[in-house]
Amino acid sequence: MRRITLRGQPVAGGKVPLVCTPLVGRTREAIRSELEAVLAKGPDLVEWRADFFEGLAEVDEVLAVARLLRQAAGPRPIVFTRRARHEGGEAVSAPEERVVEIYRAVCESGSCDVVDYELSHPPERFAEVRRASREHGVAMIGSHHDFAATPPAEELFARFQAAERAGADIAKVAVMPRRLDDVLALLGATLEASREVSIPLISMSMGAYGSLTRMFGWVFGSAVTFAVGQGSSAPGQLAIEDLNRVVEVVRRALSE
Amino acid sequence: MRRITLRGQPVAGGKVPLVCTPLVGRTREAIRSELEAVLAKGPDLVEWRADFFEGLAEVDEVLAVARLLRQAAGPRPIVFTRRARHEGGEAVSAPEERVVEIYRAVCESGSCDVVDYELSHPPERFAEVRRASREHGVAMIGSHHDFAATPPAEELFARFQAAERAGADIAKVAVMPRRLDDVLALLGATLEASREVSIPLISMSMGAYGSLTRMFGWVFGSAVTFAVGQGSSAPGQLAIEDLNRVVEVVRRALSE
Repeated sequence: MRRITLRGQPVAGGKVPLVCTPLVGRTREAIRSELEAVLAKGPDLVEWRADFFEGLAEVDEVLAVARLLRQAAGPRPIVFTRRARHEGGEAVSAPEERVVEIYRAVCESGSCDVVDYELSHPPERFAEVRRASREHGVAMIGSHHDFAATPPAEELFARFQAAERAGADIAKVAVMPRRLDDVLALLGATLEASREVSIPLISMSMGAYGSLTRMFGWVFGSAVTFAVGQGSSAPGQLAIEDLNRVVEVVRRALSE
Repeated sequence: MRRITLRGQPVAGGKVPLVCTPLVGRTREAIRSELEAVLAKGPDLVEWRADFFEGLAEVDEVLAVARLLRQAAGPRPIVFTRRARHEGGEAVSAPEERVVEIYRAVCESGSCDVVDYELSHPPERFAEVRRASREHGVAMIGSHHDFAATPPAEELFARFQAAERAGADIAKVAVMPRRLDDVLALLGATLEASREVSIPLISMSMGAYGSLTRMFGWVFGSAVTFAVGQGSSAPGQLAIEDLNRVVEVVRRALSE
């Protein structure tokens, strides 16, 4: 499996899987107190889901929160994500030009270590976020989400490849299973991509069935799994304590 | 998923998955003390792997242990298994005719609730064990093991079907993965068989990678998972405490 490195260093000493906990507060105060609660649970990464933030449309408001997070999170890497509504994000909205401007400002501010941007945007917008992140040493996740269904395995594989081709540092694919076969398809495509795609991968199947991939997807090549610290950002996420319990048993079983 | 019933009652009130713990002692005394240790861990089923028993070749010796188990196990169902050497069993040997005689005697004795016999034996031998078990109200597992590799998914599926066709009450398939793809193949074949085959299924992938299926295979249709009480009977089995810990988290995640 390809591990995620930031500024040349493997995150959390190369731990597998990395546990990422989302922040989903609506206000600056809520996010601040959520971060405190979340950090106490020891995630490896913190993702600020800025589409939950009511001040998203204002660059200054966003930067103020980003700086606050940077100070409070210490050395723990922060992922900045404005999940687009058409890929399962919240209703808080801003024109996409403004959003790209916000991504640029966040990268410039040095407050975040990673940004996540969807591959479904026009290539020139994706390229702009890519330029800004690269210029400031910020890693970029190229992501794809489908909250309605799971495409066939070949298509899932193609999406990992698309992220690589678009210049992302990390490829992320999150899809909704309709049946258990879809869960196996996601794991199979991740496994294949881990052999064929040259950048680190993040993948998950969502919802109840998909929760299996949040526990074991790392065995098949997903470098990061998302778990709930205080509030969930997608269906099927487990509490970080439960996730850690399972991962520990799996890790032991695999090393025997 | 089809649940295992014994004498018309679902085992352990229909619990999914059932946890079965093997007994692998070599002497009567060892088996007795092993059973005591194992029962304290609360398995749903106990499997006596009689091929580990040094007295296997003597009908009377086997019956003495079987009766001892029946008394000590109380209402907990007991599976009697003489795993054949060519399917991963121990070296303790007896001519196959004698083994069939032992199966018949065990069924007659009323000491066991389930017998496991390999599908790889000549059909007339399988039929003889089937007759004896049916006559005495003992359920029968028709099993297939491959300790070297995992056949393609279609072949795995065909083995579940073969058990059904041979008249077994339960179909068991245990295979060794060479790569992670094999683990997905086993889960996929189990899932398909759970839709197409009319008897309950038990399946697992063995070894380190395969340990995943011991934890989650029940979600894909395997009614039983084997876990270690005191001694392991196959590669990849987890300690019953670890297994229970994972199953509890998975069960909770699936019900959300």
